[in-house]
Amino acid sequence: MFAVIMCGGSGTRFWPASRRQRPKQFLDITGRGPMVVETCDRLAPVVRDQDMILVLGKDHLEETRKLFNGRDVQMLAEPVGKNTAPCMGLGALYAQHLGCRGPVAFLPADHFIGDPQRFLEDLGTAERVAQGGGIVTLGIVPNRPETGYGYIRRGQDRIDVDGRTAYRALEFVEKPDLEKARAYLAGGEYYWNGGIFVARPEIILGEIRKQIPGLYEGLERLGRSLDRGNLEEELKAVYPALESVSFDYGIMENTKEDLFVIPSECGWSDVGSWGSLYDLRRPEQDGEGNLAEGETLLVECERSFVSGRAGRLVACLGLREVLVVDTDDALLVADLNRSQDIRKVVEGLKRGARDKML
Amino acid sequence: MFAVIMCGGSGTRFWPASRRQRPKQFLDITGRGPMVVETCDRLAPVVRDQDMILVLGKDHLEETRKLFNGRDVQMLAEPVGKNTAPCMGLGALYAQHLGCRGPVAFLPADHFIGDPQRFLEDLGTAERVAQGGGIVTLGIVPNRPETGYGYIRRGQDRIDVDGRTAYRALEFVEKPDLEKARAYLAGGEYYWNGGIFVARPEIILGEIRKQIPGLYEGLERLGRSLDRGNLEEELKAVYPALESVSFDYGIMENTKEDLFVIPSECGWSDVGSWGSLYDLRRPEQDGEGNLAEGETLLVECERSFVSGRAGRLVACLGLREVLVVDTDDALLVADLNRSQDIRKVVEGLKRGARDKML
Repeated sequence: MFAVIMCGGSGTRFWPASRRQRPKQFLDITGRGPMVVETCDRLAPVVRDQDMILVLGKDHLEETRKLFNGRDVQMLAEPVGKNTAPCMGLGALYAQHLGCRGPVAFLPADHFIGDPQRFLEDLGTAERVAQGGGIVTLGIVPNRPETGYGYIRRGQDRIDVDGRTAYRALEFVEKPDLEKARAYLAGGEYYWNGGIFVARPEIILGEIRKQIPGLYEGLERLGRSLDRGNLEEELKAVYPALESVSFDYGIMENTKEDLFVIPSECGWSDVGSWGSLYDLRRPEQDGEGNLAEGETLLVECERSFVSGRAGRLVACLGLREVLVVDTDDALLVADLNRSQDIRKVVEGLKRGARDKML
Repeated sequence: MFAVIMCGGSGTRFWPASRRQRPKQFLDITGRGPMVVETCDRLAPVVRDQDMILVLGKDHLEETRKLFNGRDVQMLAEPVGKNTAPCMGLGALYAQHLGCRGPVAFLPADHFIGDPQRFLEDLGTAERVAQGGGIVTLGIVPNRPETGYGYIRRGQDRIDVDGRTAYRALEFVEKPDLEKARAYLAGGEYYWNGGIFVARPEIILGEIRKQIPGLYEGLERLGRSLDRGNLEEELKAVYPALESVSFDYGIMENTKEDLFVIPSECGWSDVGSWGSLYDLRRPEQDGEGNLAEGETLLVECERSFVSGRAGRLVACLGLREVLVVDTDDALLVADLNRSQDIRKVVEGLKRGARDKML
């Protein structure tokens, strides 16, 4: 199998660990190494390095090369970020260029998978379904009425593939309110949309042609440049004018293509905030629910997340549900339950002319 | 007037700002400069620099010289700390040596005075009373049933000095429990003992002779060395063997000398914890009760104290009653209401072989 690993996104939700120049996908926030490297390592049993296509922002090309330290993965640099549809189109194009005839897995670089073995089994099922055509997605089996994710509704039709089950996917739905999310959870027909798709490249490109013709024209021009060997130059010319649109919104919501969903219990998390990182690292917490890394001393603290990786000692006394993140030039102390509001800090930095901190 | 400024004490209650090598009296924790310098500046209208006698630990001599930057104050280095009775005895001796014939003010170097003008008026009253003999103390008029301070009980006898009032002091009492403290506050006959005494040096030395004869012998030997010019050498020989005892306990509790107390409303605080510092800097707090200094960004915080003087940005989000103190090599994050428990952090550092952080 080939894989397109989407490394765009300049999230600030992990400030101060993440910065404009060093977004989450390049960080070791899980304690297992940089997320993009972990994502590739996870795929290594089923995808060869030279068949992994990383699509990333041009500003991150150099750092990513360092992270992979000579490994033979492919890297495509977007001159500007244009959301997932152009990124997946470019990746599909490049997979074809590399000679890919079967399915390609399209995955975000910055997600966490608690059970990589199960993930690969589910991905294998998706691959086998996708060989027959259509677009296959992993549907993350929900364990809570999450309002922060989009959902995928399955139908009754099921396909058995080597003793495993795929469903027809009926609908991609936007983030629900709590009431709907509870109903989705109770009904058992809805899965979280983890943004992981498997399809043959010509199917992705065909859908783009049907639904976002302007984008397709741009991709055609890039395809010609691949034959001519001037992709980099053409990317600069073509990319800035492309429509910025997500694959979910631009393609999946209206596609007439066959859609399938593989229920997956692979311990997926999009790691969208310090709070969710704290949750998924539960096994590392001490008896009082504290998660501490680096140089720390905790005295009578509870359910707190203390990251002291800047070489300085971080001493905490009597904290409850507090987040402390120390870095060389900035420190964050926050209510751990409010880590989704870090954008407010980031906005404050912008307003306060502290852009260099972003 | 002469003054003896007691700069001993190696408190850790302001860790991580205070360290073994840099105790509170040498820090600028109030935002007005190092406390010992502030203490001298406060006295400057009534005491000449050359009549200010700083008694300090030998390890702090060099740094203190730097803080005073060539100013002509006297500095006496104790080879080891021996609490306040030896310190005051040595200071009294040295004041005599400098030719002092009138009263000397004995004061801690690390206390805060909110109203320096009023303080000097009260000190002036004390001086005039002390000229007639006896030991005079400032009695801080209490505004809360504090259990962390010793108290002074006044009698009914009053002396009027230039239209101001002094009382006979009947009793020095130890830190009370809350019930007693409430009674003290309600009764109006009790003052906080701020450790500020005014007396002629021969009276202090005479009391030491009567009550702590061993200490007096040591001081006599030091007195002879002053005439011979080998004080430093003799301090090394004599000091380590002296009894370590406080003036309150060793002298004041049993003295037969005349004792007087001047009620003082000078805005005194012993600044015993980060929490008390937060309280006394109330005028600097913002509308939500936050006290922030240095490079800080506070978003939706309440009643928090954030000190960011290490040059790094300290960003806080959604905190309530949290203390954050950032320094170059250590950071403290604590429940602001538990700042008196910082000793637990210090003990943790000792246990964790992090002595260099102390």
